[in-house]
Amino acid sequence: MKVGYLGPRGTFTDLAVRSAFPDLEGIAYTTIPECIEAVKKEEVEIAVVPFENALEGSVNLTIDYLFHEETVPIKAELIVPIQQHLMVHPSQQKNWREVEKILSHPQAIAQSHKFLYHHFRGVTIEQMTSTAAAAKYISEHPELKMAAIANKIAAEKYKLTIVKENIHDYAFNHTRFIVLSRHNEENLSIQLKSTSVVKTTIMVTIPTDRAGGLHQVLSAFAWRQINLSKIESRPLKTGLGNYFFMIDINQSFDDILVKNAIEEIEALECTVKYLGSYQTYKVEEI
Amino acid sequence: MKVGYLGPRGTFTDLAVRSAFPDLEGIAYTTIPECIEAVKKEEVEIAVVPFENALEGSVNLTIDYLFHEETVPIKAELIVPIQQHLMVHPSQQKNWREVEKILSHPQAIAQSHKFLYHHFRGVTIEQMTSTAAAAKYISEHPELKMAAIANKIAAEKYKLTIVKENIHDYAFNHTRFIVLSRHNEENLSIQLKSTSVVKTTIMVTIPTDRAGGLHQVLSAFAWRQINLSKIESRPLKTGLGNYFFMIDINQSFDDILVKNAIEEIEALECTVKYLGSYQTYKVEEI
Repeated sequence: MKVGYLGPRGTFTDLAVRSAFPDLEGIAYTTIPECIEAVKKEEVEIAVVPFENALEGSVNLTIDYLFHEETVPIKAELIVPIQQHLMVHPSQQKNWREVEKILSHPQAIAQSHKFLYHHFRGVTIEQMTSTAAAAKYISEHPELKMAAIANKIAAEKYKLTIVKENIHDYAFNHTRFIVLSRHNEENLSIQLKSTSVVKTTIMVTIPTDRAGGLHQVLSAFAWRQINLSKIESRPLKTGLGNYFFMIDINQSFDDILVKNAIEEIEALECTVKYLGSYQTYKVEEI
Repeated sequence: MKVGYLGPRGTFTDLAVRSAFPDLEGIAYTTIPECIEAVKKEEVEIAVVPFENALEGSVNLTIDYLFHEETVPIKAELIVPIQQHLMVHPSQQKNWREVEKILSHPQAIAQSHKFLYHHFRGVTIEQMTSTAAAAKYISEHPELKMAAIANKIAAEKYKLTIVKENIHDYAFNHTRFIVLSRHNEENLSIQLKSTSVVKTTIMVTIPTDRAGGLHQVLSAFAWRQINLSKIESRPLKTGLGNYFFMIDINQSFDDILVKNAIEEIEALECTVKYLGSYQTYKVEEI
């Protein structure tokens, strides 16, 4: 089996893939739509893409592509701690406090704001397309007094020395990745211990002329005491004010209460896209 | 009075400001937080920032900054049609079909995807930080065979020739801008005809341990037949799965039903940030 992921090598998606599927071949794609298309076209059996970050919120491109373009079932969720490290070329290891430039992805830079402010005030910060791209650049320029902010996998791949671990401001930062596949979850053999959490994800479109439509949908879950862990509105792309809703339910679709709630929502002329009912896995801090 | 807006000159925010406040001095800021801080610190009396696009959805940075950092009241909403045009330097006007490169902001490029595919397949597309920056670059390089995708204001400012109008794929695309100010709306003297729509925007935090909390909040509006035009969940930044909700109500806060609903939501131990109750204005196509 092959696993497509949002590359290049050394990104947090790569880290998620290596933790969950250490024995499978990983194929890096440049964009989220390419990952989803790859599993759709059976170039790969599995695709792993980011879904939500604790600080930045949902990854809209993933949600929108699954709704508007290709609906591929979600078979698992991987929760990965986001740990950023400061790394330099081994030849700069001794003088890392004197670096003149720090490279990284804008989000990683934002996530390490306090560290940079206290330790590298005035040093030039340069934005790169990914944390992995920053690490790669450093590895190719040993003579320059520069550092990258990236993860451990990137440090290993590009043979850089981590000079300061865990420089991110918020210790609780995590990203949810989803595992997309047409195969059954049992056959994917995820090499992580599953948590007890099972989630069901649906996307609901409510008839536009119905006032209080979302309330009606939520009522179907509320009186059955079904807990929703997330509700997100996204544009239908038919005009301002028209939305669909992505809903995460903290229960399995096999539960008769969940099944009936969704059936009734459909009977109320809402359109429901069922994305999957799946286990949640946690990647340990590394 | 001065109006701060998300610059540089020639952006759609600039266009919104010129339509609503043609007689006021506009001050361009580089980022949305800087615009909001400017009105907070009274460098300007008014700030105009993007809030939501019909295709891309909410502008998360605006919502998050108003929730987490500085709450400045919303005094009006401006709805602007997003019209993208293809423009070249006057010296390239005759040969515009032979351009070798097209520059624009990633969103404008995405919005003109079909046009580019049918008329400029194979031509290099280069991403710039804004549509205005693309227009500026073209104006400074008359000798290069290049075009920009930008709006009419940018064409005028940078003295470019529009060679193809309205190349965007979706005619219904609009962006909502919000007018932030500590002054009363009457004193802002907006030079546009208001629509009949009045909106109230609130941000609600629900106690984390309460299952069905959002349903309870929506119930307070639903049984009173108060129509909500938008609900958006955004991360509280305290960990995955913790959200606040931004809610647009299609009624004035002066309405006793709205006032009571919000009062009761607060009595249920939800925290409510009141952003404002305001008129909606439409900028005509230009």
